[in-house]
Amino acid sequence: MDINRIEFLRSDFVQGFPAYCGFTVDHISESRFETRLSVRSEHRQQDGFVHAGVIATMADHTAGYAAYTLIPETSRILTIEFKINFFKPAVGNLLVCRSAVISPGKSILAAESILYSQPEELH
Amino acid sequence: MDINRIEFLRSDFVQGFPAYCGFTVDHISESRFETRLSVRSEHRQQDGFVHAGVIATMADHTAGYAAYTLIPETSRILTIEFKINFFKPAVGNLLVCRSAVISPGKSILAAESILYSQPEELH
Amino acid sequence: MDINRIEFLRSDFVQGFPAYCGFTVDHISESRFETRLSVRSEHRQQDGFVHAGVIATMADHTAGYAAYTLIPETSRILTIEFKINFFKPAVGNLLVCRSAVISPGKSILAAESILYSQPEELH
Amino acid sequence: MDINRIEFLRSDFVQGFPAYCGFTVDHISESRFETRLSVRSEHRQQDGFVHAGVIATMADHTAGYAAYTLIPETSRILTIEFKINFFKPAVGNLLVCRSAVISPGKSILAAESILYSQPEELH
Repeated sequence: MDINRIEFLRSDFVQGFPAYCGFTVDHISESRFETRLSVRSEHRQQDGFVHAGVIATMADHTAGYAAYTLIPETSRILTIEFKINFFKPAVGNLLVCRSAVISPGKSILAAESILYSQPEELH
Repeated sequence: MDINRIEFLRSDFVQGFPAYCGFTVDHISESRFETRLSVRSEHRQQDGFVHAGVIATMADHTAGYAAYTLIPETSRILTIEFKINFFKPAVGNLLVCRSAVISPGKSILAAESILYSQPEELH
Repeated sequence: MDINRIEFLRSDFVQGFPAYCGFTVDHISESRFETRLSVRSEHRQQDGFVHAGVIATMADHTAGYAAYTLIPETSRILTIEFKINFFKPAVGNLLVCRSAVISPGKSILAAESILYSQPEELH
Repeated sequence: MDINRIEFLRSDFVQGFPAYCGFTVDHISESRFETRLSVRSEHRQQDGFVHAGVIATMADHTAGYAAYTLIPETSRILTIEFKINFFKPAVGNLLVCRSAVISPGKSILAAESILYSQPEELH
C-alpha cells in the first residue's frame, strides 16, 4: 500500500468516538487492520467486564477501516449492519482487534473482526 | 414494578462505559426500558454521523436492562450476541432508544431496541 | 396495489425451492406478505421439530416478496444477509409467516418476518 | 473420534428436511463437518440461483452437526440463532459446506459454516 494512504488511514481512524474510546492502530495492510485498547474503568460494565459496546465499537470501526484500505480515496465507508458474538467475558487490561475483508464487493464490503483480551499490556 | 427495583435499575444503568457515553434513563417498566443521549462531538465518526458503536452500545445496554427488569435480583445479565441494522445515518443532536423483551426465556432472553435520532433536544 | 401485480407476486412466489417446500400465499398488500405451510414429516429435524432451515427459508422468502411489493417490475430481489432467532421449538402442524418491510431503501430494503406455529390447520 | 459415533452422526445427519433437500456427508472429525449438495431445479429461486433458504439450511444443519461431534451422546443440538451473509449468487451445480465449531461452550456452542458453489460435480 502507498505510505501516504497508510498514514492517512492511521490518523483518520482515531477521531470522534474511537478517539474518545482510546483505540490505537497497530498495523495496516491491504484489506487488513489491527488495533488495540488499554482497558480503563470507563470501558467496563456493571460487573467489571469490558462492555459489549466497547467490543462492538472496536470490531465495527476496525472492520470499517479494513474495508477502507480497499476503496478509492474519494469514497467513504458507512456501516449498514453487523452481527457480533461474545464467547467469553473480556477480563484483561488489553484488548486486541484484528479485522480482514472477507468479501470485497463494489458497493457492499464484508469484513470480519476477531477480538481477544489479554491479562496485561504486552511489552 | 417495585419502586425500589426501578430506582436500583435507574442508577445501576449509568455506570462504567454507559456513564462515559452519557446515556440517561427516560422510562422503566416491566420488560421495557427507554433511554436517551444528547449527542456531542465525541459521539461522532469521521463523517459527522453518530458512530455505529454509540448506537450499538445504546441498543445493547438498553436492551440488557429491559431484560434485567424481568429477572431475579440475584441474577445478572450478560450479552451473548446481537445483530444491528443501520437504516439511515443518525444526524440529529438527540438519540432515543426504546427496548422491549420479545422472548423472556429462563436462561436466554431476547430483546429488541429501536433507536431514532431527532434534530434537537425536546423540551 | 394493482391486481395484476398481486396475481404476479402470488404465482411468482411459489416456484423452485419454495414450491418444493410447500409454502402457499395467504395475503399480499403494499410492503406486506403473509404465507403458510402445512407441516409434513419432511419438514422436521432429528427430534421432530420443524427444521430451522424450513423456518429460515420461509422467513427469508416471505420477507423477500414483502420487499418485492415495493420495487419496480423491472427490478429483482436478492437476499444479501439475514439474522434469525428461534425462540421456541416449532411443534405444530401449521406454520404461519408474516413479513413487513421496515426500511424501504433504494437499493437495500430491510424486512422483518414473524413466524409462529399452531397445533393444527385452522378452518 | 470413535468410529461408531462417526457412523451414527453420518446417518443421523440425513433425515427429515435435510434428507428431503438432498444433503450428503463428505467428512466428519472432532468439531468439524463437511457436506455437499448436487443442485437440482427444486433448489433454485425465481432467478435461477440456489435459493438462500437452501444455503441457510445447509449452513445451519452442517454447523449443528459440527457441534454435535463435541457433545455427549445423551445430549441434543437445537439451533437458537444464526446470521448469514450471501456474498455472491450461487450458480454452480455443486454446493459444498464446511463447518467448524469456533466456541465450544457448555450449553451454547458457536459454529461457523463456509459454503461455496462449483460449476460442476467433481470426480
